[in-house]
Amino acid sequence: MNTIQQRKEIIASAAARAHRQVSEEAPVKDAARLQQPLTDRLRGLSSPKLVSLEEAIRRSGLKDGMTISFHHHFRSGDKVINLVVAKLAEMGFKNLHLAASSLIDVHEPLIEHIRQGVITKISTSGLRGELGRAISHGLMDEPVTFRSHGTRGAAIASGELHIDVAFLGASSSDPYGNASGVSRSASAKSICGSIGYALPDARYADHVIVLTDDLVAFPNHPASISEAQVESVVEVESVGDSTKIASGAIRETKNPRDILLAQQAARVITCSGYFVDGFSIQTGSGGASLAAVKYLREEMLKQNIKASFALGGITAHMVKMHEEGLIERLIDVQSFDMVAAASLRDDPAHQEVSANEYAAANESGSATHLLDIVILSALEVDTQFNVNVLVGSDGVIRGAIGGHPDTAADAALSIIVCPLLRGRIPCVVDEVTTLVTPGASVDVVVTEYGIAVNPSRPELSERLQAAGLKLVDIHDLAARARRTVGEATPLSFGDKVVGLVLDRAGRVLDVVRNIEE
Amino acid sequence: MNTIQQRKEIIASAAARAHRQVSEEAPVKDAARLQQPLTDRLRGLSSPKLVSLEEAIRRSGLKDGMTISFHHHFRSGDKVINLVVAKLAEMGFKNLHLAASSLIDVHEPLIEHIRQGVITKISTSGLRGELGRAISHGLMDEPVTFRSHGTRGAAIASGELHIDVAFLGASSSDPYGNASGVSRSASAKSICGSIGYALPDARYADHVIVLTDDLVAFPNHPASISEAQVESVVEVESVGDSTKIASGAIRETKNPRDILLAQQAARVITCSGYFVDGFSIQTGSGGASLAAVKYLREEMLKQNIKASFALGGITAHMVKMHEEGLIERLIDVQSFDMVAAASLRDDPAHQEVSANEYAAANESGSATHLLDIVILSALEVDTQFNVNVLVGSDGVIRGAIGGHPDTAADAALSIIVCPLLRGRIPCVVDEVTTLVTPGASVDVVVTEYGIAVNPSRPELSERLQAAGLKLVDIHDLAARARRTVGEATPLSFGDKVVGLVLDRAGRVLDVVRNIEE
Repeated sequence: MNTIQQRKEIIASAAARAHRQVSEEAPVKDAARLQQPLTDRLRGLSSPKLVSLEEAIRRSGLKDGMTISFHHHFRSGDKVINLVVAKLAEMGFKNLHLAASSLIDVHEPLIEHIRQGVITKISTSGLRGELGRAISHGLMDEPVTFRSHGTRGAAIASGELHIDVAFLGASSSDPYGNASGVSRSASAKSICGSIGYALPDARYADHVIVLTDDLVAFPNHPASISEAQVESVVEVESVGDSTKIASGAIRETKNPRDILLAQQAARVITCSGYFVDGFSIQTGSGGASLAAVKYLREEMLKQNIKASFALGGITAHMVKMHEEGLIERLIDVQSFDMVAAASLRDDPAHQEVSANEYAAANESGSATHLLDIVILSALEVDTQFNVNVLVGSDGVIRGAIGGHPDTAADAALSIIVCPLLRGRIPCVVDEVTTLVTPGASVDVVVTEYGIAVNPSRPELSERLQAAGLKLVDIHDLAARARRTVGEATPLSFGDKVVGLVLDRAGRVLDVVRNIEE
Repeated sequence: MNTIQQRKEIIASAAARAHRQVSEEAPVKDAARLQQPLTDRLRGLSSPKLVSLEEAIRRSGLKDGMTISFHHHFRSGDKVINLVVAKLAEMGFKNLHLAASSLIDVHEPLIEHIRQGVITKISTSGLRGELGRAISHGLMDEPVTFRSHGTRGAAIASGELHIDVAFLGASSSDPYGNASGVSRSASAKSICGSIGYALPDARYADHVIVLTDDLVAFPNHPASISEAQVESVVEVESVGDSTKIASGAIRETKNPRDILLAQQAARVITCSGYFVDGFSIQTGSGGASLAAVKYLREEMLKQNIKASFALGGITAHMVKMHEEGLIERLIDVQSFDMVAAASLRDDPAHQEVSANEYAAANESGSATHLLDIVILSALEVDTQFNVNVLVGSDGVIRGAIGGHPDTAADAALSIIVCPLLRGRIPCVVDEVTTLVTPGASVDVVVTEYGIAVNPSRPELSERLQAAGLKLVDIHDLAARARRTVGEATPLSFGDKVVGLVLDRAGRVLDVVRNIEE
C-alpha cells in the first residue's frame, strides 16, 4: 500500500492525463434534510423549483425579443396565456414572440398586449374570435406564422422554431415539475387529458416553467413532462376551465345536416376498400367529422371489423368503441372531452403522444404515416380539392390548421365533410380564400348534394360507384352553390400580409392579407 | 379576387421577406399505401427503419474512433453487447469507445475484441469476471472510466459523454422503434422490465439502433423509447436471457449471516428517527441489503407506517409490499426480477425512470434527492467510512459503482451492510483499496460484530443508543478484523493506471492500478 501522499500524486497525474480535475472536497449532506424525513407532506410543498410566476420569469432569463410558448389543450377554457402575458406586460417586457400551439376566442386580451408592443410576433395553428378579427384587420406589423400541429413539432425539434421560455399549464405537478394533463389526487381541479402539443416545448425549450393548480407530492407519476425538463414550478389559482374544452369546433352536433354528412362519410369509408379488419382512423374536429364514427360503429359490429387504432383528437365515442373492443388502441395527442381524459389516465392502451409522434412529416414513425382513413372538415373546398380551414369566406381568420394537412397527406383515404352552403356562404368554391391543405392530399369531398372523388383516385371512384354511391363532379357542386346564392362579391383585401401559411416543409404555401371593414 | 399570377407574386414577395421558400410541388401520396390499408400485420412487418444489423450500422455513419453505447438491464443474460461488437469486428471497425451502463461476466468475449483493437476505450459502471481480471492485469492502454449511474446520465445529458451510436436491446418494439423492456404480445421472449439506464442514450445519442426479439405491430404503446428517438430497428434471435437477471449481486440470499445483517439494518432504520409515515427507501444490490426490506415490513405492519415510495432496483419483495399498500409508489430504474418487470408493465403506480431522473446530482428533482433511507453493500469500508464496491481486496476489478455514491450522498440516512470478514478477507479495513463512495456520504456501517455510526452524525448515535442498539467504534471493527486474519500483505500494484473512478461532478476521485499475478 502506498502512502497517502504517493496515492494523491498518482491520482493527480492520471487526472491530468485524462484532462480532468481531481476530486477534492467531500460531498456534504443537505443539513435541512437531516432534520426530518421528507414525508409526503414535505414532498408536496418543498422544492427549490417552486416559486412565484414573477420569480420563475426572472429566473428564466427572459429578455425582450425572445420567444415564449404555450399549449392550447384547455381550448376556450385556457387561463394560462392571459395570466402569463399580463404578468409579462406588468414586468415591462416588450417585443416578444408568442408561439402557441393554437389561439382561441378566449385569448382576446392579447389584442391589447399587441397594441402595447408586449407581443409583436405570433406563431400558431389558428386564431379565432376578436383576436382573429383584429389581426385580419391589420393589428400586427409582422404576419402571423401558421403551422400545422405536426409542422410545429418538427420545427421545434429542428430548431427552426426555437423556444426560449415555455409556459406550460398542467393539471397536476409535483414541486419538481413531474407534470401531467390529468390528476390522480383528491385536489384535482382542471383536467385536460393529453398535453401532446406541449411535449415538444417541454423537450426542446431552453427553459420550461410548469404552471399548475393541483400541486401534489413527489412523485407525480406517471408524468407526461419529466422533472428533468422543468426549471420552475408555479402554483396558480386555475390553469383552465375543463368544461369549456368540448365546445366550439369540437362540440357534439345535433344538426340534422351534419348527421346526414356523417352518415355519408361512414358509407364512403365502408365502401372504400380500406374498411378491413385492422384499419386505423382519425376524425378531425367539426361536428360531422366527429359524428361519423358513430355510424361507422354499426357497420363494424355488423361486419365484425375491428380497428387497430384511432388517432387524434380522442372523444368519448372513441373511448366507448375502444372499451367495447372495436378499437384496439387510442393514440391521443389531444383529448376532446373529460371521458377521453379519464380514459387516458386509467388505460395503458390509450396513449398520449407528442405533436411530433402524432404528425411530424419527417418522421416515418409518426402516427399519421400509419393512418388509413381520416375524416376532416372544411370552411371551403375548391374545384382542385384544395381546402381552407383557416380563413372565413369574409376574409377574416376564424379557424385553425390543426392536423388537417398532416393527416390528409399521410392517410391513404382522406375525406372532407362539408355542407355545400353555410347559410348564404358557399363552401364548395372555385378557389379557396386561403390554401391550407393542397388538393393532392384530398381524396373525397362529401356534401349533402353528393360525393366528389379526386380524379387522381380513379380506383376509389370505381369502388364507390360499384357500391352504389352516386358521385358528382366537384365542378358541378361549385356551380350548384354559385347558382343558389349567386356570384360572390370579391373580397376587399388590402395590401398588407397578415398571415403566412406554411406547408409541412416550412415553405410558404399561401398568405392571408388584411381585410377592410 | 386576384388573378392566379398576382396571388403567386404576393406569396413570393411575402416568402422572401420571411426568408422562406415558396411551396411549389404538391404533396404526393405514398403509392404503396394506396394499394391496401395498413392492417395489423403490415404495421408489424413494414417500415423503412427495419433493417439488418449490418445495414443499421452502415446507416448510422459509425466510424473508427467513435463512441458506441449499451445498457445492462439483462445483466448476466445480456446478448446484445457480444452480438453487436462481434459484428463491428467483422465489419472491420477499430478503436471504438464502448460506453456501457455496466459490464458483467458474460461480456468476457470483449477481451479478444480489445486485443484486436476493435475496442480501445471503455466507460462503464463496473466490470466483473474474466474481463475485470484481464483489465486489472493491464489489458488496455487507456484506463477504463468508471461512473455511477446518476453520473453517467448527467454526463450524457451535458455532452461530456457524447454517444455517436447507441445499440439498445428492447424486449419489444414495433418496426418504427417504439420500444420497451416489457412486452404485451403473445410472442414475448426476453423481458427485463425497466430500461432506465438506456433512456439517456435513447434521448441524447446521435443515432439510435433498437434491437429486439419481439417485433410487434405499431403502436407498441406504452413505449419507453419513442419512435421519434430511433433511427433503425433490428430484429435478432434474442436480446437476453431473463432468467439470468436475478443472479450474481442481486440474487436472494439464504446466507444466515446476511440475514442477521439484514435484521440489524432494519433495526437501525426503525430506531433512526427517519422511520415515520411517508418515508422513502432504496435497497441496493447485495443479498443483505435486498433482504433488509423483508424485516422492515414486519415493523411497518406493527407500527402502521407506510412508505411513500421505494426506489431503485425494484424487487419482488417491494412489489409485494406495494400491493399490500405498505409502499405507495415504486420508482424503477432497473427491475431486479420478473415480478418487478410484470408489475412495471401493469401498474401505473410502478413507474420507470431514466438514470437522470433516478440519480443525477445536478437535478434537484432526481429521485435520490427525495430519498430518506438507503441500504447498501460494500466490498470494503474503511475507518473513515469510505466505501469500495469496485475492486476486490486482491486488487482485481470485480464490482460496479452502480448508484452507490449517488444514493449514499443524497439519502438522509445511508446504511452500509457488510460482514467483518468474507472468508479470510477483511471487509472493514484501515484504508479502502479503491475509493468509490466518500465517507462523508456514509452514516452507518452494520456488521455482524456491531454497528458503527459516522462521528459526523452524533444525533443518530444518540437515537440508536437510546433505542438500546450497541454501537462500536469503526476502528475497533477494523482492529478486530486485523486481529482475526492478521496484517494484510500489501498488494503488488504496478505503475499502470487501468481505471479512473469519477465522482458525481466528473472529477477523478481515485484510480485503479494494474495488479500483478
